[in-house]
Amino acid sequence: MAHIKLKDEELPGIEGLLDYRPETAKPLRDLAETLLRGPSSLSSYEREIIAASVSYWNGCHFCHTSHAAAAAAYRNSGLDFIEDIKAGFVETEVSDKLRTLLHIARRVLWNGKNVTARFVEAARHHGATDMEIHDTILIASAFCMYNRYVDGLATWAPGPNEAYEAMGERMAYVGYGVSG
Amino acid sequence: MAHIKLKDEELPGIEGLLDYRPETAKPLRDLAETLLRGPSSLSSYEREIIAASVSYWNGCHFCHTSHAAAAAAYRNSGLDFIEDIKAGFVETEVSDKLRTLLHIARRVLWNGKNVTARFVEAARHHGATDMEIHDTILIASAFCMYNRYVDGLATWAPGPNEAYEAMGERMAYVGYGVSG
Repeated sequence: MAHIKLKDEELPGIEGLLDYRPETAKPLRDLAETLLRGPSSLSSYEREIIAASVSYWNGCHFCHTSHAAAAAAYRNSGLDFIEDIKAGFVETEVSDKLRTLLHIARRVLWNGKNVTARFVEAARHHGATDMEIHDTILIASAFCMYNRYVDGLATWAPGPNEAYEAMGERMAYVGYGVSG
Repeated sequence: MAHIKLKDEELPGIEGLLDYRPETAKPLRDLAETLLRGPSSLSSYEREIIAASVSYWNGCHFCHTSHAAAAAAYRNSGLDFIEDIKAGFVETEVSDKLRTLLHIARRVLWNGKNVTARFVEAARHHGATDMEIHDTILIASAFCMYNRYVDGLATWAPGPNEAYEAMGERMAYVGYGVSG
């Protein structure tokens, strides 16, 4: 049960919080929409992988599974992909550029200062642009926020991956601008 | 020097990043404006103290000093207050409610799951409402984002407290909606 009395206790994860406080929901939704679906030379698929990976490393089951399901929706290859994100892409081919961007995202986890020039240079070496490095660090930082918000208020989340399939499709193809 | 080539390298901290990427700047500014200056039963002074404290604990000099300067502007009692935020309020009287909310904010720092019922109950015992507990956790989470964004891209920041006085006044009395 959440730490506070929500208006609708059946809404999972961040959905119950966005419903509880519409004033803060708006910029939080706008930020997710811009970061994950706005104009960028990183695909939404790549950006959802960064979001899902950071959420997994932070131990946030709701954010990890929902964003991994969104990435799976872009792939259209089934929900096993969710487990492969946790495993660090044993089954799935990902580009060297995305791997080096994920290394940067991993460094953001505990403190921004852990992103050292060496990690930035490695990403650049594999073709990442300044804007892609910027977007990676901002997505990783933003999910350090969303994860803490969702877990800090002790929201509930469905367990099995299958429960996130429709949610992932909605996130990928409808977006973050509307609730439910 | 920042990890990426900014458009205006003279802008400190987050200002250079907001100028670099206007698309993401908008929801980031809207979120700060809503969290720190929007309608809430916590005063903007109290909310800036939470933001400044989290930023100090995360070791983000730019965010700590600028938001502490904003809190100091609301107090109108000089910049020594910035040091007293670092010290945990040795000189300044703060309410028991704010102290218990700061304990919650401190728990958010590494992982949201560290906010246990005991900390929430303590805040409630000292008069905090559900909405105030919500806002505290979201402000703490959001500054875990802003701090990582600012430090992850290795932005520069002025050193001395005095360099933040005008910035703090602008944040307190003009807000986060407009740059520079």
